[in-house]
Amino acid sequence: MLIIGELINCTRKKVGAAAAARDAAVIREVALRQAAAGAAYLDVNGGLPGQEPEVLRWLVEVVQEVTDLPLCLDSSDPAAFRAALPRCRRTPMISSITAEPERFAHILPLVREYGARVVALAMGSAATPTGVADRVENAARLVDELTAAGVPLADIYVDPCVLPLSVDTTQGAAVAEAIAEVRLRYPGVHTTVGLSNVSFGLPLRKLLNQSFLALLIARGLDSAIADPCDRQLMAVARAAETLMGRDEYCAAFIGDYRAGKLEPAAPAAP
Amino acid sequence: MLIIGELINCTRKKVGAAAAARDAAVIREVALRQAAAGAAYLDVNGGLPGQEPEVLRWLVEVVQEVTDLPLCLDSSDPAAFRAALPRCRRTPMISSITAEPERFAHILPLVREYGARVVALAMGSAATPTGVADRVENAARLVDELTAAGVPLADIYVDPCVLPLSVDTTQGAAVAEAIAEVRLRYPGVHTTVGLSNVSFGLPLRKLLNQSFLALLIARGLDSAIADPCDRQLMAVARAAETLMGRDEYCAAFIGDYRAGKLEPAAPAAP
Repeated sequence: MLIIGELINCTRKKVGAAAAARDAAVIREVALRQAAAGAAYLDVNGGLPGQEPEVLRWLVEVVQEVTDLPLCLDSSDPAAFRAALPRCRRTPMISSITAEPERFAHILPLVREYGARVVALAMGSAATPTGVADRVENAARLVDELTAAGVPLADIYVDPCVLPLSVDTTQGAAVAEAIAEVRLRYPGVHTTVGLSNVSFGLPLRKLLNQSFLALLIARGLDSAIADPCDRQLMAVARAAETLMGRDEYCAAFIGDYRAGKLEPAAPAAP
Repeated sequence: MLIIGELINCTRKKVGAAAAARDAAVIREVALRQAAAGAAYLDVNGGLPGQEPEVLRWLVEVVQEVTDLPLCLDSSDPAAFRAALPRCRRTPMISSITAEPERFAHILPLVREYGARVVALAMGSAATPTGVADRVENAARLVDELTAAGVPLADIYVDPCVLPLSVDTTQGAAVAEAIAEVRLRYPGVHTTVGLSNVSFGLPLRKLLNQSFLALLIARGLDSAIADPCDRQLMAVARAAETLMGRDEYCAAFIGDYRAGKLEPAAPAAP
């Protein structure tokens, strides 16, 4: 399970304020904390109105001062990608391309130029997908067009587009089923989700996110944009992969257990 | 999610000793604790060598002194069922019938006579099933023969037979797939598992059991023999059902949250 650490996101108050003030210490701390917690990629979102390209480039530079983890550049603005991509030291992930023709046309050349991995968000020109068929149809169009353009299947991370359960209780099951269908149709493609969207507007969001991760792993999910600093989430991810037979001799599970990674952190002293 | 409380089982040291000594207070306490924790049925296993029929009957009587929950009689001995069934005040569940011809022939008449629900354990005369096809084949034989004999589909709880991951890491995924296939083939049938078998021989058994429950719910599991006193397990069960769209308006989830049922118990005073 590849966890893309979600915390360096300018829509989060603390990170947005730090980015606006170019306070590098705050950003470095969030980067280091996620790296220590086991993130495989760090998502970097520089979405401050009017200055996204400079902010994204600045974030990329600051984060790379303290970690060698590859980055997932998270934006809808091609100009932001163009500003930040040349600064990435390792092959980045671009989040995201969609099946909207204009966005597709702007993002594809960047994916090809940088040999980037890419999150293929199952959104088309029509309404946001809410069922299984529309998600799979958008995903299939993206995968077909990306691979036809020479992007390797193994570089594509299909995101079925997670919507909040609080708005529509059918969304969790629809996402799970869409993941299973995409994996069946395109063996070798990766899948990812913006995990915490599912619990927006509900209490006990961590419990919901943790349970959702386990049930999506049962349908073939192999990546998620999530909070790696949630120790229970990381433990559930490891347990679920072991339970699904993706951990020979349970060696990774037992190794993580012995390293003390799978138990809740000791409570802070009062 | 129907949780069948697993704790009144004579293979557990404390319960076995209490049953041998006919110490009713211990049994009553375990029954009350599971009922308070939200069990829908209480499993009752009287497996003391040489005295199972009397012990099972005694357990049934003692448990019913303190709770009205229906019971799941758990044995492989038809004589034990014959001794205990007449004492059950509510329609019981019989655990289990298998596709072994002799066991099937002995258990079926009891299921019919008492209108009982029945756990159909996917075991045949051949070796213990270890794959998907053998589990589904045994399950299908059981469901076909039970329904042909007049047992309603809705009274059958197919148990695909959970084996420890520590012995074979493919077992979790095989059970998950078998559940999905059985549900597809027999809409309306129930499924159940002896949940904790999966984690036998591994550390952090609760974490594994909780994650396994979420991922089986993703494949259609609607019942489990498990420990209802594991609060996190019960919370994961509720969360996973809500995530799978089985909780309109998230009403049960929010209700349980407001009732304080979904958060870990406060730690005991030191």
